[in-house]
This record gives sequence, structure tokens and C-alpha cells, in this order.
Amino acid sequence: MAEPTAQSAAVPRTKVPPRERILAVARDLFYRRGIHAVGVDAIAEAAGTNKMTLYRHFSSKDELVTACLRMIAAKVIAEWDAITAAHPCDPRGELTAWLQHIGQWFMAEAGRGCALANAAVELPDPDHPARQVVREHKSAVRDRLARLCRDAGLCDPDAAASQVFLICEGARVASQSLGSHEPLTRIPALLRDLIEANTPRDAGSRGTPARGARPS
Amino acid sequence: MAEPTAQSAAVPRTKVPPRERILAVARDLFYRRGIHAVGVDAIAEAAGTNKMTLYRHFSSKDELVTACLRMIAAKVIAEWDAITAAHPCDPRGELTAWLQHIGQWFMAEAGRGCALANAAVELPDPDHPARQVVREHKSAVRDRLARLCRDAGLCDPDAAASQVFLICEGARVASQSLGSHEPLTRIPALLRDLIEANTPRDAGSRGTPARGARPS
Repeated sequence: MAEPTAQSAAVPRTKVPPRERILAVARDLFYRRGIHAVGVDAIAEAAGTNKMTLYRHFSSKDELVTACLRMIAAKVIAEWDAITAAHPCDPRGELTAWLQHIGQWFMAEAGRGCALANAAVELPDPDHPARQVVREHKSAVRDRLARLCRDAGLCDPDAAASQVFLICEGARVASQSLGSHEPLTRIPALLRDLIEANTPRDAGSRGTPARGARPS
Repeated sequence: MAEPTAQSAAVPRTKVPPRERILAVARDLFYRRGIHAVGVDAIAEAAGTNKMTLYRHFSSKDELVTACLRMIAAKVIAEWDAITAAHPCDPRGELTAWLQHIGQWFMAEAGRGCALANAAVELPDPDHPARQVVREHKSAVRDRLARLCRDAGLCDPDAAASQVFLICEGARVASQSLGSHEPLTRIPALLRDLIEANTPRDAGSRGTPARGARPS
């Protein structure tokens, strides 16, 4: 598969401020090519700006990487918030809708998996500032999923949430290792079976209305 | 966490031929620091040799990376072969022993997860020669696990094998994302529950003796 050029990732330059252009291009290039493979020169060029402007907005490449990951994490949480808002007092409905949502979203990632998990692999130093963004985001997702499984009345909510979380993380990395979408196409059925197996016989579509605050 | 120096990865130089020294050092450095972060100069120096000797044995860094991954994959398969040999005509015993084995092995990876899965993330080009080693190895492991689940008489062996495979892959990448061993410490119980849930009520410790050839 031919590697797209930096130019192909360029966003329209009109009206979009340089900072947003740089972030959009950097996010795309880091994701597709890998963090180490992309330099600030290529990002500045593809964003239609220059290195001096880039460094005015981001003091280092590490800071730019960190800002990109923070933006991705915020989008994931915002999408989940929208699903939560669409299912008031219906945690089981929210869980089902979220599982459908991630099934479609993972397929759209086209063989490169999770940008945040990939960053943790690409940046082995646990003290890298980007690693803190990854840690906080993955912890928030895992904790929110555990709460949702509890609120949805699953039999062993912590174990079910762990299984769902690890299967999702595994499918996204395995789609890269196996060079195939097959793990991703399998997960809707695997997750449905898993939720079904953890649903009390008398539960049907019950939900527990009261819930704690969501991570913002 | 301080990053160890290249020298600390050096192997004793006496009696070990240069090729093996280079492979051992490269495998260790690529794993701990990441493939892109380690150059051939650092590898040659840590192996007590020079770049000319390195290039006499490996025509490129890509070839060295590929050889390292092939060596790791061969070790994984050899360890599984030993478990198979220790459980003749007892697929359920083999499955249980393999799950115990991977539980210990994953913990020993100390926060850097699977070298092969990491390489797929670090090398986004699916045509990179190392990616073929990763694809073949992960496919072999997944297929062998599916066969073992079938031979062990699990109810829905393909689904069970997929769940086990993805939970293992997920735990190894999540230990990096979360910066914690917690996903790894959870998997023995998760896998045990999963196998238990997929065991027919009357099965106990039954096994189906006849089996096909193993991947070599």
C-alpha cells in the first residue's frame, strides 16, 4: 500500500487558524505514519505554514503530540456523552448503543487501531507527557464502562466491563498484527454474547435510573 | 523511570558469535526503547562489534528487526510445543497449562507488552517484511488456540478462542496504555471464567485425543 504524501493530509487553509490546521494535519500524519516517522517540517508544510509558526503554538513536538492525543480523547468522551444524553435513565440502552457505536467507529479506523494505545507503544517512556493523556483517557473509559455495566444490572459488572474493555483493546491491536479487519468484524457478536451471558435471567431491558456523575 | 543505557543490554562477548550477540542486543533494545528509537550504531556498540560486521550479517536495519521478531515468534511456539508434549492426548490439560504459562509470561514483560504486536504498531507499512512475520505468528497462535479449544471440547470453541486471544492481546496493550499491571493480573481469572463458561456441564476434564499437526 503506497504511503500518502504529507500534502494529501493538508486541510483547506482558508479561514482555519494555523493552530487548528497544524493540529488537524499532525493528528492525521502521526496516526497514519507513526509518531517517530513524522517530523515537524512535514507537519508545518502540510498545514500550509512554517516551523516558526508551529513552534509559536507548540513549544516542542512532544507538546504537539500530547495536544493531538488530548483532542482525540476529548472527541471520544464527547461522543459517549451524546449517547448518554440520548438514553436518560436507560443504562442498558446506553450500553447497547455504545457497543454499536464503537463497532462502527473501530471499523472506520482502517487497520491502524487506537491512536492513544498506539502512542503508548510508540513512546515507551512512561514519563512522556503524552503517556499521561493516554493513561487518564483509558482509565476514564474503563471506569465509565464499569459504572455503566453496574447501572445496567449485569451479573458480574466488573468482570464484564474488563472483558469488554480488553476485547475492544485487543481487537484494535490485533487488526494491525493480523493485517485484517476480521477481529473488528467479530467484536459486535462477541460483545453481544458477553452482555447477554452477564444479564440476569429476569432482567430483560431493566435499568437502574440513579447514576453518579460522568467523567467530563 | 530512567532509560537503561545501550551498554547495560550488552551480552558477554566471549564465545558468542557476533551474529548472535547482535541479535540478542537488538532484540532487547528494540523491545525496550522502540524500533525507531534505536539505530544500528547503538546496537553494534552494545554488541561489542561494529557497523561493518552488523551489515555483513544483516543487509539492513529492517532485516535485523525482522530476524529479531522471527526469533521471538520461534521461542513462543517452542514453549507451546513443550506444553503440548507434556500433555499428550489431554487438550484440556494443555489449554489450562498454556493459560497458566501465558499469565506468568505476560507479567514478565513488565509494561512493554508483546514485541510482535508493538512492531505492527511501530511499522505502519503493511508491506514491511517484519509485518509478515507478525501476521504469520499471530495467525498461527490464534488458529492453534482455536484448534485447542475445539479439541478440549468447549461449547463454542471459535468464539471462546477469539475471546481468549483478544483478551490476551488487549491486556498486553492495555498494560502499556494504563501504565499498570492490573489488566495482566486480571487475566488468569477472566480466562478461567471464560473457559469454565464454555465447558459443557458433563465435560469435567475430558479430552479428545485425536488432533491435527501443530504449526512448527
